[in-house]
Amino acid sequence: MASTRHALRLAAQSRHTAARLAGTKRGTSSNFFTFSANSTARRGFTSSPSSLASSVTPATSIAAAVAGLALGGGLLAYNMAVEEPIRCDTPTLAERDEQTRRDNNGTINEQSPMRLRMEKFIKEQQQAIIKGLAEIENSGGVATAGGAVEGQSDRPARTFRQDEWLRKEGGGGITCVMQDGVVFEKAGVGVSVVYGKLPKAGILRMRANHRNLGGAGSDADLPESLEFFAAGLSLVVHPRNPMAPTVHLNYRYFETANPDGTPSGADGTGVWWFGGGADLTPSYLFDEDAIHFHRTLKDVCDRHSKSYWPRFKKWCDEYFYNKHRFESRGVGGIFFDDLDEASGGAPGEGPADKESLFSFVQDGLRAFLPSYAPIIVRRKDMPFTDAEKEWQQIRRGRYVEFNLVHDRGTAFGLNTPGPRVESILMSLPLTASWKYMYEPAPKSREQRLLDVLRNPREWV
Amino acid sequence: MASTRHALRLAAQSRHTAARLAGTKRGTSSNFFTFSANSTARRGFTSSPSSLASSVTPATSIAAAVAGLALGGGLLAYNMAVEEPIRCDTPTLAERDEQTRRDNNGTINEQSPMRLRMEKFIKEQQQAIIKGLAEIENSGGVATAGGAVEGQSDRPARTFRQDEWLRKEGGGGITCVMQDGVVFEKAGVGVSVVYGKLPKAGILRMRANHRNLGGAGSDADLPESLEFFAAGLSLVVHPRNPMAPTVHLNYRYFETANPDGTPSGADGTGVWWFGGGADLTPSYLFDEDAIHFHRTLKDVCDRHSKSYWPRFKKWCDEYFYNKHRFESRGVGGIFFDDLDEASGGAPGEGPADKESLFSFVQDGLRAFLPSYAPIIVRRKDMPFTDAEKEWQQIRRGRYVEFNLVHDRGTAFGLNTPGPRVESILMSLPLTASWKYMYEPAPKSREQRLLDVLRNPREWV
Repeated sequence: MASTRHALRLAAQSRHTAARLAGTKRGTSSNFFTFSANSTARRGFTSSPSSLASSVTPATSIAAAVAGLALGGGLLAYNMAVEEPIRCDTPTLAERDEQTRRDNNGTINEQSPMRLRMEKFIKEQQQAIIKGLAEIENSGGVATAGGAVEGQSDRPARTFRQDEWLRKEGGGGITCVMQDGVVFEKAGVGVSVVYGKLPKAGILRMRANHRNLGGAGSDADLPESLEFFAAGLSLVVHPRNPMAPTVHLNYRYFETANPDGTPSGADGTGVWWFGGGADLTPSYLFDEDAIHFHRTLKDVCDRHSKSYWPRFKKWCDEYFYNKHRFESRGVGGIFFDDLDEASGGAPGEGPADKESLFSFVQDGLRAFLPSYAPIIVRRKDMPFTDAEKEWQQIRRGRYVEFNLVHDRGTAFGLNTPGPRVESILMSLPLTASWKYMYEPAPKSREQRLLDVLRNPREWV
Repeated sequence: MASTRHALRLAAQSRHTAARLAGTKRGTSSNFFTFSANSTARRGFTSSPSSLASSVTPATSIAAAVAGLALGGGLLAYNMAVEEPIRCDTPTLAERDEQTRRDNNGTINEQSPMRLRMEKFIKEQQQAIIKGLAEIENSGGVATAGGAVEGQSDRPARTFRQDEWLRKEGGGGITCVMQDGVVFEKAGVGVSVVYGKLPKAGILRMRANHRNLGGAGSDADLPESLEFFAAGLSLVVHPRNPMAPTVHLNYRYFETANPDGTPSGADGTGVWWFGGGADLTPSYLFDEDAIHFHRTLKDVCDRHSKSYWPRFKKWCDEYFYNKHRFESRGVGGIFFDDLDEASGGAPGEGPADKESLFSFVQDGLRAFLPSYAPIIVRRKDMPFTDAEKEWQQIRRGRYVEFNLVHDRGTAFGLNTPGPRVESILMSLPLTASWKYMYEPAPKSREQRLLDVLRNPREWV
């Protein structure tokens, strides 16, 4: 055991460990790492711990952190990773994973730790999704205001810009964005993988949802810190055509470990959970789109537990609620968090294990293109008027309001010192509008959307 | 005394007291009152006290409340006015002011309570400002992208839309907006006047900055509640031409009273304070504009106390800092809060009295048109390119980020049940843009602005 630790320690001593952790392609990553690192140093004005960061309530702080995390990098930094890694003789979780990769020549399989499996899976899915979206972007003509359809055969094929970035503390991410396309005004698909240290205060907060965290004893017996790992994929797609809906998706995995990298928790099996979901935000409502989207997600849920759809659909309606406007952000979908053995099952189904929950998350993520592609394909070339485009812009303003005012992950991230802001805010639309006291005409299609947003419907 | 109270009580029993409190013109007010009242009732989903609301730190909660207040109505509701007015034999502050108005046939003079004087003053200034801005809007040709100047002699003169609205709990406001003009893309000038009840928890928070509040005794001796009054004027102007800067201004007055409407505080002289300021946000930097704006504000400050300019300029730079971007919102101006006898003076100047502080606030507000009109007049007709308009849109996106993420007043307001959202968010631009990883060219005019935003300058 001692010699194994020594070997791991040696491996970890390389000054480039953090860089290697991020995996494969480099691309422009060094630039963006510089960007991120510089941004914290640029000005000493971080003032008090931000009011937004401190506003996260105990029961939701980790949900917020991980939700934010999945959109960007460094988002857990404020509460969990402000301290430098302790240099001692036990390898950290990041160092252990690095060693595992080396021992297996980079091969990840079902025997690998869930951390590496989740990272591999979301990176594969990221590539599949941007490939699928790019195919739609390059698939033919596109409508413009006034109803004319412009050909695009003479345009060069568009692809996603892929930026890889690293975190000083371990891990990093890949942010893929396609902007100003003919089909997609802005589409962002981001992966982030974060290793960090969770201080005692963070452990205490997380115990609200995970009693096993830090051991079964009382709060007084908690360790001073735990290692943590978090990985997620997050995407937001804003199409150009106002008849086509915006879509958002996020799936994430979180795990903690003892300070020496061994599994944490009372029974030594580790403490971990999954979170995720997807939701649809139309400017113009087509019932068949909402039904298709919900039907696809319900099928995924039902394959894993009959309890999921009713729980996660309701959770989504409650979470994506723009409460200062008294309206939902969109027509919903699913949302869940803190899904572990205890909460992953349902009455009569027994506890859920990690494999079955990973399988559920995989199914959910794989269902993205089937849930959304048919909708965008049938809407992208529809004619529309300037007034309809304007209504879309106003709805985009509401989307911005939700993301900047109410979304816990975004707020938490932006108020963290040194976040990768561009990755967090890739969720914002290319353009948005605010008109004072704008009211749709009674009985208009615009008013019909508002009616549904104010009274969420059961679509399937 | 008993008969006076009885008379006041009778006056207050009218079911229309609240409506009459708002003063003069009715206009469309009843519609907007309905809007505001309905919005709270429309859905029972207010969930937990919002994370943003609870994030306001003790020392700043009232600053936040009053800053938000001045932009809209009902913003103090969550922390201070959630309870219905107590129906007892002592008249409230609102009822006393109503009676004072009746006794004097509506005449407000230097002997009137500061509440009524401040309300009168900001309503007069609101009219003067919208008149001044409308004159500029209607004053001639205007540049368009490409440099052409379109005449507007055949356009009908444009005016501000004026919406008057009421608060169920007492008071109300007037929101004036001009939108989609040739000079002004969006200009909002709002007045709000709020009477409410400050519960014990609110008193405790406010004592951090105002020890006299609720009496000189210990926290245990505090009354269960106090009456409060708050009034403010707030404005944001977003011009169309990217060479013309956005401007923001806010001045406000706050006062508390005992539950029977008599002056609160240990010595019975009342507890009150002023807050305010103005700041300039260019997309393209013209040194002469920044110098003129700062010079005008410095002159106002210097006339009242040599200590004001250095304090309030610094306070502004610190407050209007978009910390997730590591840049200032604009080129600054002045910002102050909690200005009372104790904090209003300076070493060697002795304590400030209410009259001198009101005089300072009056000077500050009257300086708005002189500080801004010359700038807009010389920029409104400048030629500009599409690329310059696009840069303006990106800067507008940063403005939206500051207002929705960091501005305490906006956040507090939006997370309050039943606010008048449209009045709070009149500060948002008509249009804004977010481009992923947008970077100006080195040494460009755009980059020069960023350099100044990252290293605030002394302009005078």
